[in-house]
Amino acid sequence: MTTRVDEHGVRRRPDALIVEEPLAIELDGQRVTTTMRTPGHDFELAAGFCFTEGLLAGAPVQTCRYCGTGSAVETEFNVVSVETGGVAPVPTPRLGTTTSSCGLCGSASIDELCERLAPLDPTLATAFPLEVVASLPDRALGQQALFAETGAVHAAAAFDPTGEVLVVREDVGRHNAVDKVVGKLLLEGALPASALGLYVSGRASFEIVQKAWAAGFPVVVAVSAPTALAVDTARRAGMLLGGFVRDGGMNVYAPERLPG
Amino acid sequence: MTTRVDEHGVRRRPDALIVEEPLAIELDGQRVTTTMRTPGHDFELAAGFCFTEGLLAGAPVQTCRYCGTGSAVETEFNVVSVETGGVAPVPTPRLGTTTSSCGLCGSASIDELCERLAPLDPTLATAFPLEVVASLPDRALGQQALFAETGAVHAAAAFDPTGEVLVVREDVGRHNAVDKVVGKLLLEGALPASALGLYVSGRASFEIVQKAWAAGFPVVVAVSAPTALAVDTARRAGMLLGGFVRDGGMNVYAPERLPG
Repeated sequence: MTTRVDEHGVRRRPDALIVEEPLAIELDGQRVTTTMRTPGHDFELAAGFCFTEGLLAGAPVQTCRYCGTGSAVETEFNVVSVETGGVAPVPTPRLGTTTSSCGLCGSASIDELCERLAPLDPTLATAFPLEVVASLPDRALGQQALFAETGAVHAAAAFDPTGEVLVVREDVGRHNAVDKVVGKLLLEGALPASALGLYVSGRASFEIVQKAWAAGFPVVVAVSAPTALAVDTARRAGMLLGGFVRDGGMNVYAPERLPG
Repeated sequence: MTTRVDEHGVRRRPDALIVEEPLAIELDGQRVTTTMRTPGHDFELAAGFCFTEGLLAGAPVQTCRYCGTGSAVETEFNVVSVETGGVAPVPTPRLGTTTSSCGLCGSASIDELCERLAPLDPTLATAFPLEVVASLPDRALGQQALFAETGAVHAAAAFDPTGEVLVVREDVGRHNAVDKVVGKLLLEGALPASALGLYVSGRASFEIVQKAWAAGFPVVVAVSAPTALAVDTARRAGMLLGGFVRDGGMNVYAPERLPG
């Protein structure tokens, strides 16, 4: 129950809130991060995170499992371990590490990605008609069950060139929603996502484009704006990046100029 | 320049993008985090982050300074050190650390805060008329310069019981905008913010409520929804938490029942 206050006065009414709980992600038994997430699809989230952050370094995921050791039931499902049998490199805490000699800035962040990720084939994006990409919010919204209930949760979706939405994941965190989509494709053996586009319900930040690039999506479309760094990254990646996709229209930020 | 695609066709037009650059924050020379932020008010962001995350543990900030050692000018301003002369505890990387024996879950997260932060005096919130709190989006929007330009940036603001907005800060990250507001108050010696409310342009997650509680705000109001964990945390803190504040109305999630 919540209390509504407006010009009609004060009244109590039922309300559905989005759930947010911490999830610790381990890679081969080593803690790599703790994220606040909406429970559900946790294996996809954990595997997707390890993949998009480059922690797997090509190692196949053997299994994912809950590994909470707490005595309370609620803690059992807040620790997930992604297992590669020790094939993935041992993760190192990135906090406190010094950056490369070229310094810390946006262009250095892009350069780091370019060392790790191959450029996408820019012709892959041409399989997606722009009017199909611009229609994604309407197509995805019908599958955003949590948003319908709470009005406050991010979504990410993978779609094909006909606009069919193949998977939708929702989470209190934008990055988590993307990691869940990528994780699902990873665990199904469907990466790289060379024939799919990625839809995100919010903005396109550098990290969203980074995760999409790692997964091989040639197209990313966001309901809100991209950042300047996200645009630069998408152009370097060879990705089609759309933003402000609403009412059947959108802005195309990458490539810098549409062909033709 | 960007490319607009809609029912009128394809055309080029100018576009302002929000800037996103990494900022490394150091405490007494020790790297504590790297965040993607919108440049500007970096000292406030760095000091506010160290404060709201509990890293200062009561130590006064002596100074903040840029300490980039890169040869390129652009890297000089992406590392900020917050100096307490060694009074703050030496920060330890939290990545990879194990959690307390009570396990990892939302209620344990709240319990951790309760150990660190004293409850707020719930009568402090009664200084703020609900109709004033509900009017905050309109009052803050006029000062959101970057939002006006780009349509895609988060804002946080501190306001007094008359609804006057004392400080507005904008950032690509919601948490950063809050840290900048808290940092400004901290560096001015104006904490705890017992006579101020905090407005946030997006949702109210656990971390937003945590930061507001650390700074002593008795009132938090968000344009979008709070999470379930944020509501539980605000109730434990003795905070008034409003959400979906629009068109002069809002939902009040904490306290559970309004007095009277």
